[in-house]
Amino acid sequence: MDWERIEEKLDQLLAQSRHGQLRGALMMLNPVDIAGYMKKLDKEKLLLLFRILPKDVSADVFSYMDSDQRQMLVESIADAEISALIDEMFVDDAVDFLEELPANAVKRVLQNTDPRTRAIINQFLKYPENSAGSLMTIEYCEVSQDMNVRDALQSIKETGVDKETVYTLYMLDSQRHLIGSIPLHKALVVSEDTALAKLMEPGTISVNTLDDQEVVADTVRKYHLLSIPVVDGEGRMVGIITSDDIMDVIEAENTEDIQKMSGLAPSELPYFKSKLLVLAGNRLPWLMVLMFTSIVSGAIIARFESVLAINILLSASIPMLMDTGGNCGQQASTLIIRGIALGEVKFSDFFRVLWTEFRVGILIGIALSSVTFVRLLLINQATPIMSAVISASLFCTVVIAKSIGCILPLLAQRIRVDPALAASPLITTIVDACSLFIFFTIASNFIL
Amino acid sequence: MDWERIEEKLDQLLAQSRHGQLRGALMMLNPVDIAGYMKKLDKEKLLLLFRILPKDVSADVFSYMDSDQRQMLVESIADAEISALIDEMFVDDAVDFLEELPANAVKRVLQNTDPRTRAIINQFLKYPENSAGSLMTIEYCEVSQDMNVRDALQSIKETGVDKETVYTLYMLDSQRHLIGSIPLHKALVVSEDTALAKLMEPGTISVNTLDDQEVVADTVRKYHLLSIPVVDGEGRMVGIITSDDIMDVIEAENTEDIQKMSGLAPSELPYFKSKLLVLAGNRLPWLMVLMFTSIVSGAIIARFESVLAINILLSASIPMLMDTGGNCGQQASTLIIRGIALGEVKFSDFFRVLWTEFRVGILIGIALSSVTFVRLLLINQATPIMSAVISASLFCTVVIAKSIGCILPLLAQRIRVDPALAASPLITTIVDACSLFIFFTIASNFIL
Repeated sequence: MDWERIEEKLDQLLAQSRHGQLRGALMMLNPVDIAGYMKKLDKEKLLLLFRILPKDVSADVFSYMDSDQRQMLVESIADAEISALIDEMFVDDAVDFLEELPANAVKRVLQNTDPRTRAIINQFLKYPENSAGSLMTIEYCEVSQDMNVRDALQSIKETGVDKETVYTLYMLDSQRHLIGSIPLHKALVVSEDTALAKLMEPGTISVNTLDDQEVVADTVRKYHLLSIPVVDGEGRMVGIITSDDIMDVIEAENTEDIQKMSGLAPSELPYFKSKLLVLAGNRLPWLMVLMFTSIVSGAIIARFESVLAINILLSASIPMLMDTGGNCGQQASTLIIRGIALGEVKFSDFFRVLWTEFRVGILIGIALSSVTFVRLLLINQATPIMSAVISASLFCTVVIAKSIGCILPLLAQRIRVDPALAASPLITTIVDACSLFIFFTIASNFIL
Repeated sequence: MDWERIEEKLDQLLAQSRHGQLRGALMMLNPVDIAGYMKKLDKEKLLLLFRILPKDVSADVFSYMDSDQRQMLVESIADAEISALIDEMFVDDAVDFLEELPANAVKRVLQNTDPRTRAIINQFLKYPENSAGSLMTIEYCEVSQDMNVRDALQSIKETGVDKETVYTLYMLDSQRHLIGSIPLHKALVVSEDTALAKLMEPGTISVNTLDDQEVVADTVRKYHLLSIPVVDGEGRMVGIITSDDIMDVIEAENTEDIQKMSGLAPSELPYFKSKLLVLAGNRLPWLMVLMFTSIVSGAIIARFESVLAINILLSASIPMLMDTGGNCGQQASTLIIRGIALGEVKFSDFFRVLWTEFRVGILIGIALSSVTFVRLLLINQATPIMSAVISASLFCTVVIAKSIGCILPLLAQRIRVDPALAASPLITTIVDACSLFIFFTIASNFIL
């Protein structure tokens, strides 16, 4: 059954107030899809549907809903109901949600939750945004050194952590220091009498509560992990982060990089959720800076006014030089920025990168300038000397653009500025000034 | 112990040929780190280290090694040894590796593997590159409708699939159609007599063998899955894909998008692994196309030669107009391209997007052109009419750049071209021509 027919069916049941059937139908769907369906409902129907869902499903659905819809729900239902919801949610999802609420609402909601949950949530709210601490959940399975497989399985049954976070068992010592981990699958293929210590994988990879989410994502991706334990400053285990949450982090970090590379202030809000003034405000600062730096290029043109007057072909070549230079610089900077982000390129590779880009620039410069030379001679019927001047300028522009394009991101990384900022817009502006300067210098020496 | 000291210790043990200790030390490390350490070894030491490792670890390490190092190893060890390695690897990793080998080597290697593995690998090699089929692994746990929890745990123990891929049990009917899934954690908290059918989650999300990896990644991310089942054209289950492999897909897809957005032919090779001619070849096609389109801008300048002669301020403003237009267009296109990639913006939003960008353009246009007007009047001491002409051109350029920047990616998506191609370089070139045309039209009407 395709999604449109499912939606139609749900609409029908909702319109006919067949709540029993509706509940049955919803139970067949994934919480993500239920949240998707709810997006188009008005407040009243949203509330109705939400209350029809069993409590554990509604908590799941709630964590996948839009923040404005969650806000709407919270305003409509009683505090006790919200608190029950929070008790049912994963701690990390609950914290995410509470961070969106105004401070007084958080207080009101937390008053009604179970005191243990409250204590944990309060602790979580103290971690910096986008830190490992704010991403983690505390629902994981810990075991001690003297346990065997049977004890571990029994402990899973007793604590009843009915979550996918039980797939790694973490072995802690009496001070709660993380000493190793046991993938659950290893425990399932051996006799129940086997000591867990025998199955333990030492040197478990972990992150610190204060590590940035980018570090967490890089580590999880590098080691192909399903989840990663989080330890505090003293090496005591406090939680875990699962790979499904890491995927969202990876996409968010990529979005941030891409935005910075286009001269945008990074924004986590989806396009249509952003207010007009915010959209404009995120773009203005860089535009303003770059507009002023491009005045340098204008000044170069003004200074060489007399050269321009010689032949209109010179003025007409300015866009080609500027555009090609900008594009070459952007290509080089993009490759290097991406290489840095994926850990393939480091500052210590500086000369190796520069040497590579220099040679690539020469190859591309030869290709583009020889085509241009022939074009000017045959199509524009320029003199050989005029054609040579313009093609030579193009060649130099390409080589310089490639070099600047790779140097700037590496330098940015060196001085601990995000390399993504040294991308296209900035490089285009710098390359423009350089290419015009070369152009006029060559032209005034060979034609005047 | 930090990584440098670990490496030093390993170097020492290797130099002193203390193989027993070396083996012990390596066992304490993650296979990813062992592969990382091996990167700097020469052929002889690499081979030695590789043979010291226990067989199951060496297969893991092998799948994390660089492709050139793998090539080197394969050339040095006997076919039987390679085949043993392949038997030990996850099927998807083995397939990845075999795809890198020359055809005759694949044949030779496969001759020595276990016949079942060989049949499976041959089947896998038929799936298109980057399809779900080529990503999946067949090591998963299937159960039938009449089994209870005890049967399932017994079956895990018997098949001995000692992999993290057992964390979801897939229920198949007698024709091997996927009818539902049971997260293993649910089975662990109930009595062993519970029928699996009672725990089953219906409507399991799955992908088809021929689906592109991008579809797989989007689905896994949307539903926050740890693994996703893959079915063939008749709905029969053939394998699963785990989330750790999906993370690599997400990064690869992001890299491809970013490369296309900068006018680069997409390449999966890391920067330093690419040959010089490949690096140049990936960049040349777009540069050539864009160089020729920028001739249009040059022609516009040539046509309005007489206007330029009036005042040098007009020529000097060309870089500012071109750069600002390009930057504005790039900002808009980046936001829309990213919105499309994350599923936040669709073609049906065309007019909504255009209306938003139009208004953002007006806001930004007002800000930039009023600053420019004042600058021209006060600093460049231009006449009010000259300042007005340049500022008005800037304003129009910004509004048009924002509109073109959002229209092109949406149109590209509509005609099933990757929206990322309608990014900065292409838009910059188009916006340049538009802005120069507007500029000269306004100037010739108000100044001449």
